[in-house]
Amino acid sequence: MIVNCAVYEQGQRRQGDLSLGEAGQAARGEDAFVWLGVLEPSAEEFEAIASEFDLHELAVEDAVNAHQRPKVELYGDTLLVVVKTAHYVDSNEVCDIGELLLFVHPTFIITVRHGAGELGAVRARIERRPDLLRLGVGMVLYAILDYVVDGYEEAAQGVDGDIQDVERQVFADDGGNPAQRLYALEREVLDFHTAVAPLSGVVDELSRGHFEVVPDQLQEYFRDVHDHLRRVETRISGFRELLGSALHANLTQVSVRQNEDMRKISAWVAILAVPTMIAGIYGMNFDDMPELHWRFGYPLVLAIIAVACLALYRRFKRAGWL
Amino acid sequence: MIVNCAVYEQGQRRQGDLSLGEAGQAARGEDAFVWLGVLEPSAEEFEAIASEFDLHELAVEDAVNAHQRPKVELYGDTLLVVVKTAHYVDSNEVCDIGELLLFVHPTFIITVRHGAGELGAVRARIERRPDLLRLGVGMVLYAILDYVVDGYEEAAQGVDGDIQDVERQVFADDGGNPAQRLYALEREVLDFHTAVAPLSGVVDELSRGHFEVVPDQLQEYFRDVHDHLRRVETRISGFRELLGSALHANLTQVSVRQNEDMRKISAWVAILAVPTMIAGIYGMNFDDMPELHWRFGYPLVLAIIAVACLALYRRFKRAGWL
Amino acid sequence: MIVNCAVYEQGQRRQGDLSLGEAGQAARGEDAFVWLGVLEPSAEEFEAIASEFDLHELAVEDAVNAHQRPKVELYGDTLLVVVKTAHYVDSNEVCDIGELLLFVHPTFIITVRHGAGELGAVRARIERRPDLLRLGVGMVLYAILDYVVDGYEEAAQGVDGDIQDVERQVFADDGGNPAQRLYALEREVLDFHTAVAPLSGVVDELSRGHFEVVPDQLQEYFRDVHDHLRRVETRISGFRELLGSALHANLTQVSVRQNEDMRKISAWVAILAVPTMIAGIYGMNFDDMPELHWRFGYPLVLAIIAVACLALYRRFKRAGWL
Amino acid sequence: MIVNCAVYEQGQRRQGDLSLGEAGQAARGEDAFVWLGVLEPSAEEFEAIASEFDLHELAVEDAVNAHQRPKVELYGDTLLVVVKTAHYVDSNEVCDIGELLLFVHPTFIITVRHGAGELGAVRARIERRPDLLRLGVGMVLYAILDYVVDGYEEAAQGVDGDIQDVERQVFADDGGNPAQRLYALEREVLDFHTAVAPLSGVVDELSRGHFEVVPDQLQEYFRDVHDHLRRVETRISGFRELLGSALHANLTQVSVRQNEDMRKISAWVAILAVPTMIAGIYGMNFDDMPELHWRFGYPLVLAIIAVACLALYRRFKRAGWL
Amino acid sequence: MIVNCAVYEQGQRRQGDLSLGEAGQAARGEDAFVWLGVLEPSAEEFEAIASEFDLHELAVEDAVNAHQRPKVELYGDTLLVVVKTAHYVDSNEVCDIGELLLFVHPTFIITVRHGAGELGAVRARIERRPDLLRLGVGMVLYAILDYVVDGYEEAAQGVDGDIQDVERQVFADDGGNPAQRLYALEREVLDFHTAVAPLSGVVDELSRGHFEVVPDQLQEYFRDVHDHLRRVETRISGFRELLGSALHANLTQVSVRQNEDMRKISAWVAILAVPTMIAGIYGMNFDDMPELHWRFGYPLVLAIIAVACLALYRRFKRAGWL
Repeated sequence: MIVNCAVYEQGQRRQGDLSLGEAGQAARGEDAFVWLGVLEPSAEEFEAIASEFDLHELAVEDAVNAHQRPKVELYGDTLLVVVKTAHYVDSNEVCDIGELLLFVHPTFIITVRHGAGELGAVRARIERRPDLLRLGVGMVLYAILDYVVDGYEEAAQGVDGDIQDVERQVFADDGGNPAQRLYALEREVLDFHTAVAPLSGVVDELSRGHFEVVPDQLQEYFRDVHDHLRRVETRISGFRELLGSALHANLTQVSVRQNEDMRKISAWVAILAVPTMIAGIYGMNFDDMPELHWRFGYPLVLAIIAVACLALYRRFKRAGWL
Repeated sequence: MIVNCAVYEQGQRRQGDLSLGEAGQAARGEDAFVWLGVLEPSAEEFEAIASEFDLHELAVEDAVNAHQRPKVELYGDTLLVVVKTAHYVDSNEVCDIGELLLFVHPTFIITVRHGAGELGAVRARIERRPDLLRLGVGMVLYAILDYVVDGYEEAAQGVDGDIQDVERQVFADDGGNPAQRLYALEREVLDFHTAVAPLSGVVDELSRGHFEVVPDQLQEYFRDVHDHLRRVETRISGFRELLGSALHANLTQVSVRQNEDMRKISAWVAILAVPTMIAGIYGMNFDDMPELHWRFGYPLVLAIIAVACLALYRRFKRAGWL
Repeated sequence: MIVNCAVYEQGQRRQGDLSLGEAGQAARGEDAFVWLGVLEPSAEEFEAIASEFDLHELAVEDAVNAHQRPKVELYGDTLLVVVKTAHYVDSNEVCDIGELLLFVHPTFIITVRHGAGELGAVRARIERRPDLLRLGVGMVLYAILDYVVDGYEEAAQGVDGDIQDVERQVFADDGGNPAQRLYALEREVLDFHTAVAPLSGVVDELSRGHFEVVPDQLQEYFRDVHDHLRRVETRISGFRELLGSALHANLTQVSVRQNEDMRKISAWVAILAVPTMIAGIYGMNFDDMPELHWRFGYPLVLAIIAVACLALYRRFKRAGWL
Repeated sequence: MIVNCAVYEQGQRRQGDLSLGEAGQAARGEDAFVWLGVLEPSAEEFEAIASEFDLHELAVEDAVNAHQRPKVELYGDTLLVVVKTAHYVDSNEVCDIGELLLFVHPTFIITVRHGAGELGAVRARIERRPDLLRLGVGMVLYAILDYVVDGYEEAAQGVDGDIQDVERQVFADDGGNPAQRLYALEREVLDFHTAVAPLSGVVDELSRGHFEVVPDQLQEYFRDVHDHLRRVETRISGFRELLGSALHANLTQVSVRQNEDMRKISAWVAILAVPTMIAGIYGMNFDDMPELHWRFGYPLVLAIIAVACLALYRRFKRAGWL
Repeated sequence: MIVNCAVYEQGQRRQGDLSLGEAGQAARGEDAFVWLGVLEPSAEEFEAIASEFDLHELAVEDAVNAHQRPKVELYGDTLLVVVKTAHYVDSNEVCDIGELLLFVHPTFIITVRHGAGELGAVRARIERRPDLLRLGVGMVLYAILDYVVDGYEEAAQGVDGDIQDVERQVFADDGGNPAQRLYALEREVLDFHTAVAPLSGVVDELSRGHFEVVPDQLQEYFRDVHDHLRRVETRISGFRELLGSALHANLTQVSVRQNEDMRKISAWVAILAVPTMIAGIYGMNFDDMPELHWRFGYPLVLAIIAVACLALYRRFKRAGWL
């Protein structure tokens, strides 16, 4: 589905809607470039676009099926840049991973989106900067990558919050066993890392000026994106390490808490065993047990039992077992 | 055993069956190439083929014994490509690893198969595309690698399903101890990784155009296979990490569940110890125990016992121990 | 906020305070350089500085927002060096990480500080060495990096102390469960490592004389900083490994200590079960139990109980269970 | 001790035994080469050989002391190749590591053996192939390396059998605690890996034709050895990973089995506590306990006890605790 | 403190003691070189030496403070080589790490020692070899490095002994909990590795003939040292892995042993609960309990108790729980 189609000339968007054919024609002209935004196209839809803009056969397959690794690939004059978008969904603590395929040519840029990663904000932002728009498609590519990487940072922030939350749960005194949540976070961070890690090489290549669509004066912008990307990467690597340690610490904490429970129960059983034993002795039926006939035998034994239990209780309390 | 033998001319398969000698003759001609499919050949069988197509002595040994690492090797004009095939067998949750040895020469391609990895589907598919067949043996090589890597993706999908299944088992409330299944999966993923990992370098080399049999217009196709391969690789690496964490999480879950059982039993023992203790006291034989002679002494004690047990039960229940 | 602004000529600081305009003018002159110290500038403040000293648009954003990775980047003639400062706060066992952005140009150096990392000491030190000051901004850059890396070493020293402290806690006989402290240290060391690790590449690049502001005779100084940095890095890597092992050792120690407690309680329960059993037997109501009528039956049984308990106690004691 | 000494001319072994002096003389001639096999030489023995064949001072020390890393080193015209041999001893499940030092010169090859790694089979095999022997010392070097690497594969096979055996032990229902065996295997695999890993670089260097003694037509043979070597290496790395996981799984299994034992004992104790409690109640001495005077009081209580115990037993059985 | 000062001419030590000034003068001559041995110099002492031999400012600081990473650095004509010495102290199982700073110039070598690493033996050894001494300072440098690396091997031997000792402790039947010793060994091995690892690069650089003081005919000697060094490194890396596994195995063994203790106690408690229960039943006060009036009721019950306990005991014994 084509969600947006515009021609930019001299840093300005040409008024009015364009048909696909008009867009293709504009892309064959000069001094202007077309930005075509497509959302989860069907094979037929995209083949029409591909034939209009002369895209490579393999690219069509990629654009329709998605599930590509982040990469940059040159097919003839057209650069195919694949990036993953990440969007943190607070309500269910999940990182939503989408995919963007960008076909970049000096006279057009086609953005194919699968899943999360709406680009309306990028379009609005660059249309406010005619000075940058004049630099052509490279600037649009930069703006999209910058937006995507900002999305990573937000997602990383969300994941960090989750991790700190689960850490508190691990070490809380009344804590349960957040093993499942830890594991789910580990899976999520792994997916996130898989989405982010290969992009670093892609942006690095773009920033080195190997490609025509990135003019020299834009290289510093791509290096800036690259720096942000490496910061996010380092952070995600840190997440993995922390989660590994948290899983270990959780095992310790859970086993400590459960052992404490056992110890408490056992201590009470031990305390109860003392009066049972003493009572058992005075329940024996020997003919000659003088204590049984004492005037204060019974209260004395009760007192002894009470004292013994109290002494044990104190001792266990002092040892931190109760 | 020779399972298939065909000559392709001008993108078309020449009609009729060929003997090995005719195939060898055709391979010495021009404007055509031979595809010879061999299944687990004996030493004698393969030596006949080797002498017909002039293959290297070491290659004969490899082709007969199999158990090679994935590799690409140039013997004279003939390229030897070794790849592993993977086929997921759903019924017993196992990844079946086979081996393909491809002898590729501008005028012939010999495919030696050991174990899983039937190539009939590939042959059918390329025979439907005369335009690609015209590109020669390189196209056949691409089609085979593409098919093999697709097989990896399916196998990875199957393994992923297993892992998600065993994860559910780990965290299920009534869960058993899937340690053995986790370990078996780890072994399987390790074998899978060993089969897949070295191929990446092989396909990369092929896609760089170092070899005559891969013409320039095919390089993009091999790069596409390479991308798919790296995606599978990343996924398998992720499996290893997840299984490692799952093994840890399983230890936590199992020990938690078993400790809960112990705590429950101990709590019941503690509850039972209270009436035993009280009854013991009134079973003592002191001469002077006034409570024994009270009118409602017995029901009172029974009531005390009941209240004490109930209080304990509630407390344990509230603490989540019962 | 501009915290300091000085012009250095011939290794001497020119007397009197300078306005920003005067500083900019001085930086456009020759044979002198300006050092401008800025603390957490607002966007407006820094834009004034940027336009005076002709800094790049992206650099302004970096300087205001901070949170950059350590890096060295050339924007035109101006070198941007980003470093993290580390300051160990003894009272709450935390490593305080700050950020310094250094804009270095042959005729000026602008230091933008966020958080910890006061540079007054550096300024004082270099003003005492006119011979080195004569070497220009490169010397100031060296002095700052040297000071920052010395700060790392102090921080590493502090962290090492913490680790040794927590080690003692892990293995102490009366030890608690320092799992949370271990984990907090791990998080701290990870942050520290993230701050320090990328600087190594930065200083290495500076020491190789790729940049105009570092003259040849200063390269040995930068190599010296690089050596110190690698020493700190190795040490921090060691911390990570030690903390991982300590987490494991802690699990062992905690479970050992808790098992010892359980064993002790269980042993006492077992000792108490012996008299209970014996007393139970002599509490039976059989008509014909000769022992009950013996003259010394009761004291004999008491003696037997005492001996049995003592024997058990001794045995448990010898086995190290009590 | 010199165990064998032969001159090969035109692919044939010259008849008769040679003294060391004659061998040295032959090695100074042309169109022939000497193969001298030495076993654990004393310093004096080897110095005689060294002076006859003009070997380097440092090489003498190496040859006598052994305990070298696998390496290839050029001393003048003589190549020193050090390899480790591995021999799996089935009876005590141990990998026997020996050492071979090969001094290779276009006109002689001296093989110094320490420990396992008898080369008689190699000598016999190459003497049956005059066509290959004509290629000179390089062919002998290849034959030895091929033999050594075949030995690795056999040893790896043996170790794999051990690992599968210990895996079965880990997961067996009546399993013991094979922690010590697992650890011993880990040590063995580590030693094996240390012996094998550096050889890969050595053979790679030899296969690249950097050395005069390996003529071009032999390079494919050395690449073949290299492939085999990498396969063994991958396999050994897999062993290390599997053993690490098995150690973890073993901890889980052992603790599961022991917890099951504890649970079983505790469940029985809980069952026994019920009749004890009920009996205690009817052992109380209250004046007025109507049940005591009932006609069927006693059998009724016995019946209640039996029913309670049976109910508990069933419940525990159903929960899998007994 | 200057501990030794000698001039070597023509492979011979010049007779008599030298003052620092005379040494400096000799070092400015030809055909001779000075070896100056210094032990933990004060800043003043070393500044005198530095000015006499024209050493770099930064080097003075290094030499006085020590705590450098192993490195090789060229300051003008003078090479600064920093190495760590290791000396295993058997009595307290500790690896004593010292530091050597070597200033090497074609006409002098200054050795600054901090901590362990006495060089008297090296001096004695090289003075016995005039043929090597004639090769100049490079030979001295080699002799020192060779001696240092031999020290590593001895220390590694000592550590290996400790590890095998602690392994025995881990798996001993009467074993305690060597967790603390394991951890201490891990810390020691880490320090050892930190000392050894960077030296490999240093020696490699020296062996490649980048420096004037190492003439071509000495390169083989330095390569020999490099090989030894890599062997030690591999061994130390192996130590780290083994200790990690031993820590895991220890957790298993300790928990197994403690669980065995618990099981034993619990089994005894279960055995004792049987007579207690039976006795409780016959302690009930029902009017009509026929067994109580049987002629052999009491001995019969005693017999039943004895049989039940024995049966339980046997069962537990057979299950390996007692």
